[in-house]
Order: sequence, then structure tokens, then C-alpha cells
Amino acid sequence: MNTLNFVNDRPLDFIAMGRAGVDLYARERNTPMEDVSGFDKFVGGSPANIAAGLSKLGNKVGFIGKVSADPLGRYVVNYLQGIGIDTSRIVFDDSGSKTGLAFTEMKAEDCGLVMYRNNASDLLISPQEISEDYIRQAKALVISGTALCRSPSRDAVLLALMYARKHGTVVICDVDYRPYSWDSPEEVSVYYSLAAEKCDVIIGTREELDAMEHAVDPGNTDDAVSARRWFDHHAQIVVIKHGKDGSFAYTREGEVHRGGIFPVELVKPFGAGDAFASAFSHSLLQGQGMTACLEAGAASASLVISRDSCTEAMPTAEELRDFIAAHNR
Amino acid sequence: MNTLNFVNDRPLDFIAMGRAGVDLYARERNTPMEDVSGFDKFVGGSPANIAAGLSKLGNKVGFIGKVSADPLGRYVVNYLQGIGIDTSRIVFDDSGSKTGLAFTEMKAEDCGLVMYRNNASDLLISPQEISEDYIRQAKALVISGTALCRSPSRDAVLLALMYARKHGTVVICDVDYRPYSWDSPEEVSVYYSLAAEKCDVIIGTREELDAMEHAVDPGNTDDAVSARRWFDHHAQIVVIKHGKDGSFAYTREGEVHRGGIFPVELVKPFGAGDAFASAFSHSLLQGQGMTACLEAGAASASLVISRDSCTEAMPTAEELRDFIAAHNR
Amino acid sequence: MNTLNFVNDRPLDFIAMGRAGVDLYARERNTPMEDVSGFDKFVGGSPANIAAGLSKLGNKVGFIGKVSADPLGRYVVNYLQGIGIDTSRIVFDDSGSKTGLAFTEMKAEDCGLVMYRNNASDLLISPQEISEDYIRQAKALVISGTALCRSPSRDAVLLALMYARKHGTVVICDVDYRPYSWDSPEEVSVYYSLAAEKCDVIIGTREELDAMEHAVDPGNTDDAVSARRWFDHHAQIVVIKHGKDGSFAYTREGEVHRGGIFPVELVKPFGAGDAFASAFSHSLLQGQGMTACLEAGAASASLVISRDSCTEAMPTAEELRDFIAAHNR
Amino acid sequence: MNTLNFVNDRPLDFIAMGRAGVDLYARERNTPMEDVSGFDKFVGGSPANIAAGLSKLGNKVGFIGKVSADPLGRYVVNYLQGIGIDTSRIVFDDSGSKTGLAFTEMKAEDCGLVMYRNNASDLLISPQEISEDYIRQAKALVISGTALCRSPSRDAVLLALMYARKHGTVVICDVDYRPYSWDSPEEVSVYYSLAAEKCDVIIGTREELDAMEHAVDPGNTDDAVSARRWFDHHAQIVVIKHGKDGSFAYTREGEVHRGGIFPVELVKPFGAGDAFASAFSHSLLQGQGMTACLEAGAASASLVISRDSCTEAMPTAEELRDFIAAHNR
Repeated sequence: MNTLNFVNDRPLDFIAMGRAGVDLYARERNTPMEDVSGFDKFVGGSPANIAAGLSKLGNKVGFIGKVSADPLGRYVVNYLQGIGIDTSRIVFDDSGSKTGLAFTEMKAEDCGLVMYRNNASDLLISPQEISEDYIRQAKALVISGTALCRSPSRDAVLLALMYARKHGTVVICDVDYRPYSWDSPEEVSVYYSLAAEKCDVIIGTREELDAMEHAVDPGNTDDAVSARRWFDHHAQIVVIKHGKDGSFAYTREGEVHRGGIFPVELVKPFGAGDAFASAFSHSLLQGQGMTACLEAGAASASLVISRDSCTEAMPTAEELRDFIAAHNR
Repeated sequence: MNTLNFVNDRPLDFIAMGRAGVDLYARERNTPMEDVSGFDKFVGGSPANIAAGLSKLGNKVGFIGKVSADPLGRYVVNYLQGIGIDTSRIVFDDSGSKTGLAFTEMKAEDCGLVMYRNNASDLLISPQEISEDYIRQAKALVISGTALCRSPSRDAVLLALMYARKHGTVVICDVDYRPYSWDSPEEVSVYYSLAAEKCDVIIGTREELDAMEHAVDPGNTDDAVSARRWFDHHAQIVVIKHGKDGSFAYTREGEVHRGGIFPVELVKPFGAGDAFASAFSHSLLQGQGMTACLEAGAASASLVISRDSCTEAMPTAEELRDFIAAHNR
Repeated sequence: MNTLNFVNDRPLDFIAMGRAGVDLYARERNTPMEDVSGFDKFVGGSPANIAAGLSKLGNKVGFIGKVSADPLGRYVVNYLQGIGIDTSRIVFDDSGSKTGLAFTEMKAEDCGLVMYRNNASDLLISPQEISEDYIRQAKALVISGTALCRSPSRDAVLLALMYARKHGTVVICDVDYRPYSWDSPEEVSVYYSLAAEKCDVIIGTREELDAMEHAVDPGNTDDAVSARRWFDHHAQIVVIKHGKDGSFAYTREGEVHRGGIFPVELVKPFGAGDAFASAFSHSLLQGQGMTACLEAGAASASLVISRDSCTEAMPTAEELRDFIAAHNR
Repeated sequence: MNTLNFVNDRPLDFIAMGRAGVDLYARERNTPMEDVSGFDKFVGGSPANIAAGLSKLGNKVGFIGKVSADPLGRYVVNYLQGIGIDTSRIVFDDSGSKTGLAFTEMKAEDCGLVMYRNNASDLLISPQEISEDYIRQAKALVISGTALCRSPSRDAVLLALMYARKHGTVVICDVDYRPYSWDSPEEVSVYYSLAAEKCDVIIGTREELDAMEHAVDPGNTDDAVSARRWFDHHAQIVVIKHGKDGSFAYTREGEVHRGGIFPVELVKPFGAGDAFASAFSHSLLQGQGMTACLEAGAASASLVISRDSCTEAMPTAEELRDFIAAHNR
């Protein structure tokens, strides 16, 4: 059952918040990064990917974030704007920060990745830059956990969550835990917990939930226990992903739904989580049941990892429908 | 009515957490700091003062904090230990931080103050240094807001609050808001709000509550509205102090109690809040009603500001009783 | 006259020191960076370019520097090693620094450039990592001014200069002044002056010499005065470049030599200075006169800016000879 | 022989540059710092002490430095001004830095010391704040090595040295090496060497000269070798102190002079070096020979360590004369 209560008369369906950067994909497949001749340029970053996915599925989407005031920052904003996303709340920073970069190899396994995140622009968004009014204009706010790793971005996310709760904007959290961004497991657990207490929907892998619970319930590996923790706060739905073993959606009413996966040939492993989150969230807003939501998420994930990019690989509603139909035949 | 539910079979009555430093009081009264010949040395810092006050009133008190591994840090620990406080959870830091200092003039008005807080040891306490087991051993945890101003101390306090809630340790928060310690009013509001949501008792001045509410309810000046915000979370009692106009204690049950003040001749203005918090908290643990708690707080505050120091000026239970009796005659 | 005194029985002809990074060149020419589809990957950084140029001209070259312990850092080292440079003194850093990046458009004019230099690995090389023995093994040390912009790299360069003076290693300084790397014009002037006092050969544009003299001789624009300043210390030759108007070489003996330029069709403006420095330094070591040295420098510069890359565009001795012959016909 | 060439028609005899802070001396003698009741307040810091000493000996003295814009910073400036020092070039900083503090015990041996130097104001003086004209107005500039430990103070000192050399202001360097202020022995050696190359007079202990030479002549312990190194640059006189074994003054002309010490009863060990430097420098300006200069330095040192403070203990010319006469009887 999907008991989420979206406030429908709002101009924006979703606001995504956090990291938007540049992905640089190795030009040659199955080649070590040292040896490639160059890189293809795409927009990336988990919340940017989710925003792109939501937009392609037909939603009105806004983005809250920060990029550098230079050609790479402008590229990110131009791209998001070009696919119909409202970028009026993306701030250009000229203090010396740089739009985050992710250099990646193109491999199915052991896929090399080099992140440029020193003084990354996205982590400089501050609570002063969060508009209460903007958050009040959206049916849902999608946050991605990486934005919690450091102040002032952390403070900005926590304030956005307070505004969302105050105004009935449904909060969806994609855990998106990246250990290299954090100083200690305790810090991870403290801030993920504080954020999760304010969320309606939480989506993460089992490993990500372990990291969230590190300090508050060390050693727990029981999905049902993890889910219940957040039902004591504001959560309505907790989705726990188990890779090839599929996903489980727990609801506050006590239901458990299992979702499978759609096997495809893998081009590169990343983007799967963002694709899942966007299609799952879209289906929630459409009022679909848990089973349909999980199926949409899994289908979108499979589609993206079988393609060359992330933002650009996100499927339209029609592509998603066709893919599911073809695989369920 | 005092509906707090202290778990009584615990070895510690109170744990205070946060800043413990050295106060250096001008040797000559009513003299500009430039012109004094030297300074008297005392232990200070809001939670250290509260801990001293609670200990003098007969409670078993522990302290969580961090000081520099040097003679001044050792002085702080020796002093607290000497008045019966358990200092086993005070960490000595040898990374180059320094125990915070407060140089003060001794004046009734316009009392000059110079703080040494650059790389202060107390703000370096980290969540890894917080023992869940220690917090489980106390009936109540007293936190002071200054410890929220910066990570990792901020993270440590938030984790301590999670442990306290998990184990039924009553949480008392003295807001102790120092604007110079913070970067922006939004940051103040975000972290004070997150902490306050986990507290059973909140004690602050009207100005401090304004700072807490800056982002989440800007412009509100109604004490009852402020109090209700926290009753929606875990708060049972919210005390709002109005200086010479006395204090108001709001309870979750909807009662409002007014407390007066005891007029005395002022030697120096500081220490009043810490004295209030310690006597009020002590009275809460004794199971006293709101009126008695407010009276004890006010009496302790008056006693301390009519004396030369802070920690040393804190009254015993007998002194407090005598003072109240003398003034109520 | 070329009165430099190279100590000839040493295994290395040149050691270059400083920045070695990754250049990412826009795949499409004359296209704004926002709109290019991707980037070609090359090794770059002024001293790396000079080292490549010297190596291609047939010299035994070593490099002192620091790169990130990741695929991009390994690419830089592999490339330099592949063209015959001794990379045994390039340190891999795993503290979180990143190999510097330079994204560039490919345009003859208004050529957009985005530098990634936040916590750049090259600026982390420290004096502890400078081997006195290594510097004693080279005939000449080539430093590039950007390495002076920040400690510890600054300290490392200054120590390398002390070792070079102690052991008779000829010091060649390419000023390579990048305003964005520095905090104040006074700082620029102080450290460039201290370094220049220890150099045998100084190569810079008029604007670069103005920056060097900002504090010590403000307002001077007379090349001869600028040159004499350094002749009072260790300089033997000062080359001042005036763009399209050619260059002037001043010698300690009081000679002035003028060098012209070789007009070519410009593909991109960068790399010219590095090409000049490498061919000029090579000619110095060959014992050639000032006129021949200036001509070689100018020819190499013209060759590089008419080609697509930097390191790879550096000419061999034969290419250089042919180019000069063709143009002087 | 004293071959220093002071330019005599200048309004200031000496400018001292660097650290000026607050010394807090334990009120009780021979008591651990933990147990003293308070502290007496004095002005301190090596160059401030030297400036006070020079002023008391009858010189016109100026000071270049930075203090916090608060009562403690104002105290430092008021005090120096009160003893006749020109403080027009002391900058008040309001960026959050703090005037440095030194808490000390009062003991003849194992004298405890706690320094507060985190974000110390004196280390924030920048090259932009150095007036070339001011340095041109003094016969001599006295620098103290601690100011070299960190930028921007380091940059400011190096620029002041360049101005002094340009205008014939005699430079006297008191090495004043404090290991805790520095990051690595190599950094110490690099910057002390660069500064010493620009000095006319260098005064240090054997241990301090070892630290200066760490990178450039490791293992040398021969005073004559140490002295000669600097004679190759601008030094005229190098004084090397050997504690109770007295001092040796080496001159560029090849002379060596030995100075003894005046035994006294020690109250506290600090201040001796500053007293020596001020009386020695004063005697140099008076045109006295090496033997007389060394005797004045030793006498002033003995006087100061037999007294309770530093700045205040500095002798007048008459006191110094009487002390020497009494001891030489």
C-alpha cells in the first residue's frame, strides 16, 4: 500500500537537492584510465541523475545546488535546463570552489573511478541559500546522503528537511553513502540518523543501512528492525536493496514487498541506484502500489547500466513501460 | 507539576557535557582590563559551572569533555576531581589545542571579556569518544549549547543525545548561546532545533529562544508558542528567562509557572545562568514542583553574582536553603 | 657570449622541478567548453612540458615532483618515463591531494581555461623530499615559478636552489607567473626575488618581471635595469620576452641580444613559453651563443603553438633545425 | 673591531619587529602552574623585550607588529608607548586572531611554560603592512626568528629585510628559535638561511645555529665555520652563545672575541637572550668594540634573570654601568 500524502496543487512535482557535477567517461571501453586517449563529458552526481530521470519520466522538477562559476559549472546548469529542469535555485560560486568531477573507466567489473572533490562547489551550499518558499512549492523533496557529509551543505540539507516537514512536502532520501566523503563511522551514523528521522521514504542498500545504524544499533542486519527504527519517526516506506537478490519495501503498516531485478548485459555499474530512485519515486507520486514501484525502479536501473551514460540513459515513461513489457513477456 | 521520569537505580545523578576551561578574573575591581596588575585563576565554562553547582548541592556528577594536555588542562581536571566530580571521561588532547580561557573584568556593568577559543580543546571532543555505557549510568545528562557550535564537538553532543534517548537518561539543555562561536543564524537555528527535539527540559532566555527559532519560526516572540514547539517532540518542561522580570516554566501538561528573582548587590554579571541551571536541575531530580524549582534556580543565581567567582561561588544545599529563607522572611 | 659554467661529468643534463599534471584539451576546435563533447588527455604543466622538450632534444632529463596515487597520477609518470625521463624522484601522494588538471578550449583567441588546483599534489612536495645528492648529479636545474606560490612546495624549491648553488648545478628559472595561484603582489615579489637571487639564468616576459619587482623596484619598466638587479646576485643571463616583438637576452658582461619570432598559424596559444625555455636551455648547454639560443627558443615556441598539444608537440633537434632552415631561407 | 656602518642622520635608532604579547607570570614562586592562585600580567615576546631594553638604554625605538583589537592587545600597545616606543606601526587585528600569551611558572629550574599561539595575531602581519619608508627612517632593524615560522609574518620579515638592505638599514637578527612553532627542521633551515643571508649581525646559541644549518651544513658544530658561512653574504658580526661558558663574537675581519658571564642568583631563566641582544645592539650603535659589546650583553642578561619580569627588568644605561662596575671590582 502506498499511503504517502502528496499535496497535489503545487507547481513542482519534485525538487532534487545536492551534488551536480561533471562525469568524464573513458572514451575506450575495457581500458585502464592511464591508457585511454580521452573522456566523454556528461552531467553526473546522484541527485542530478535522479532529477534527470524524474524529468524524463514527465515530472516538473527543480534542483537546489551549487556549481562553480566557470564553463564546467555553466555546462551542468545548461544541461539540466535543457532537459526541462528548473535551475533557478542552482547557485554559481566564485570563491574558488570547483564543480565536482568523476573520471570513470568503462568496464563491467573493477571499474576505476577518480573523484575530484577537493573544495567541491556542491558542498558549499549553505542554509542561507535555502528558500523555504521554494520547498513549499513542491510535492516532494529528494535528498541524497552525500550532501550530509560536510557543513555547510549538511546544514543546508537539514534545514531543507525542516522546511519540508513544516509544509508537508514529502521527503525521499536516497542514502547514497560514499565512505571517502566522511571522517568517521560515528559521524556518518549521527547525521544519517538525524536526516532519516525527518524522511517519509528511505531507499538504501543493506550496507548503507548498516552505516546509518553504526552508532545507534551496531550489529543489526535485520531489515525489518532497520525499517521499524524509522517508522518510529516519520517514515512511511523503507526500501532496502540487496543487489542481485532484489529489493524489499517495508511499509509503516507492516507490509513487506519483494522486488526482483531485470538481468541485462552490463556496460558499467554506476547509475543503477539513481535510476532506481527516480523511477520508484515517480511511481510513488503516480499513486502506484509497492510492487509496481519496485518493478519500475528495477527496470530503470537495468536500462541505465546497459547504456553508456547516466543522465542521458535515463528512460522515458514509454521506454520504461516497453522494457518491462518486453521482459515480463 | 514535575512529570519527569528519572531512572533512579543509576550510579550517577548527572553527567554534564561540554566546555570546561580557565577563567581569569581581573585582580582589581572596576578597573579596565588594560590596567589590572594580574588575574585570579578559576575553573569556568558553563557546563563546568553547572557540574560544580550540582556537585556542591550533593549530587553524584560526571563530566564529559576535553582539555589540553598541559598544566592548565590538568588544573581544570584536578579542580573538578577535587570537588567530587568523576573526571574519568575528560580526555586530554595533545594535538595542539588549548584549554579555553576567559579573561574578565570585575564590574557590575559593561564588564569586559576576552575569550581565547582558537582551536579550543573542548570543541575537539569527537563522537568516537562518547561512551554509550557511561550515559546509560546517569539519571540525567546536562548539555550546554555552545558545544553544538562546531564539529566534532557538535557531532559528539548529538550522539550523546541519541544515547540518552535510547536509555531513558533525562536530557536537560541549557541553551547558553554565544553568537561569537557561530557562523550564521541559520546554522544556530538548525542545530539548536535538532538538539532541542531530543531534550526533556530546555532552559534559555527569550533572546536565546529567538536564536533557536530564527529559521523555523522567524519573528515569534510568544513564550507559549516557543514552548509548544518542543512539546511536539520530547520536551516536558521549557523554562524561559526574562532577566529582572523573572522566569516562566511551561509544562507539557499546559501549566505555566512564574518565578521571581532575589535582588542582590551585583559583583559581576556572569555565572547567573549556570547557577540557575544547576539548582533548577537539582530540584527537578529531587522531585520538587515547578515553583520550588524556579525559586531554587533564582536563589542560586543571585548568590553567585554577589560573589567573586563562579565554580567556587556555587552554594551548598544548606546555603541555598538559608538564602531563600532569609529572603522570604 | 655564453659564460655559463656547466659541470660536465654528471649523469643528468637537466632536472626539471615542479608541476606535472593532466591537460584535457577540448575535442572540438573553436567551440565553447560548455558545448564540447569531450576532452583529449595529455600530460601538461610548465616544468613537465619543458622536461619533455629537453628530452626530445636529446638530453638526459630527471624530474622532481609529486602526483596523486591514482590512475591520473600514474598516467603522468608513465608518460614521462615513456619518453625517457627519469621519474625516480616523482613522489606519489595518497593524502587526498589530486594531480592538477587544466581543461582548455582549442582556440587561437580568448581561449577558455579551467584549472583544477584545489589541494593540487604538485604543491605538496616538501623540503624533506628533496635529495641533495640528486641535484648534485645534474648539470642544470630548471625551476618554474608556480612552484613558489605556496608552502611546502615553495620551501622545497628554495632548498633545491640552495643545494644547486652549493654544488655548482646551473639554475635556470622560467618565471611562469600565474596570478591566480598567489595571495598578494607583495608575496609574489618577495619569493620570486629570493629565488631569482639564486639563479644563473632567468627567463620571463616583461609582465612577469614587473610582478617580480613589484615590491623591490615598483614602476620600473626598463629591461636593462631589471636585468642588472639580478646580475648583482648570481645571474649570468636574463631573457625578457616581449611577445610578438621578440625577446632580449641581457648578459652579465653587458651585452644585449635581440631575438625575433617565427610567424605561424596559431592553433592554441599555450605551450609557447615552455617550448622556448626548453630549446633555449638546450642550446645553452650545447655552448651556443645568445643569438642561436634565442633563435632556437623562438622556433620551438612557434612549432608548438601551431600544433594540437604541448608535451607531444615538442620538437626533436632535427625538426627544430629543419624548421629554422625552412624559415630562414 | 666594530665595522658596522650605521647611517646616523635618521630619526629612529632601532626598529624591532615581530612578536609582542602578554606574559602571565605565576603569582607564587616555586609552585606548579596547576596550583598557583593567579598570574601577574606583563608585556612579553622576544622582540618586544628587546625593544623595551633598547628604549630603556636611551634609544629612539619603533616597533612593527600586530596585536588583537581587544583589551589585551591595547594593553601591549599602551605599555610600549608608555615606555617611549613608537607604536604607530603596530596593527590591530579584528579578524579573530588573539594576542599571544605565555603563562610561566617562577622557578630557577624546570620552569613550566604554556604558550597560547593558535591563530596568534603577531603571525598575521603581512608584507602589505610593511612600510618601506619606515624602515628607511631607522639606523637598524632588529628581527627575531620566530616571526619567520609562518606566512604571512614570514613574508613580511623577508620583505622588511629587502627594504633594509636597499636603504642601508643595519640588520640585526636574534635567532630566537622555538621548535614548537615550526613544521620541519628543513623548513627551519631554509628560512633562517634566507634571512641570515641578508643580516649584518647574527646572534644565536650554538643549538640555534645547528638548527639554521640543518639542511645546508648538517653535522657542523664548529663556530668558526658557522660564522664564515654568513660572512660570504652580508654578515659583519656573528655572536654564538654557549650558556654558562660565555659567548664568542666572530667578525668578518677574522677576529674572535670571547665574552664571559656575570653569575647571579636566578629567579627565572627567560629573558636572558633578549636582554643580551638589546644591550649588545645598543653598544654596537654606540660604536663600542666587541669586548665591550659582549660585556654589556652579559651584564644585561644577568640583571634580567635575577629579577621578576622581562620588559620591566630591562636595565637603564646607568644601571648597566653600575652593575658591570660592581662585578668587575
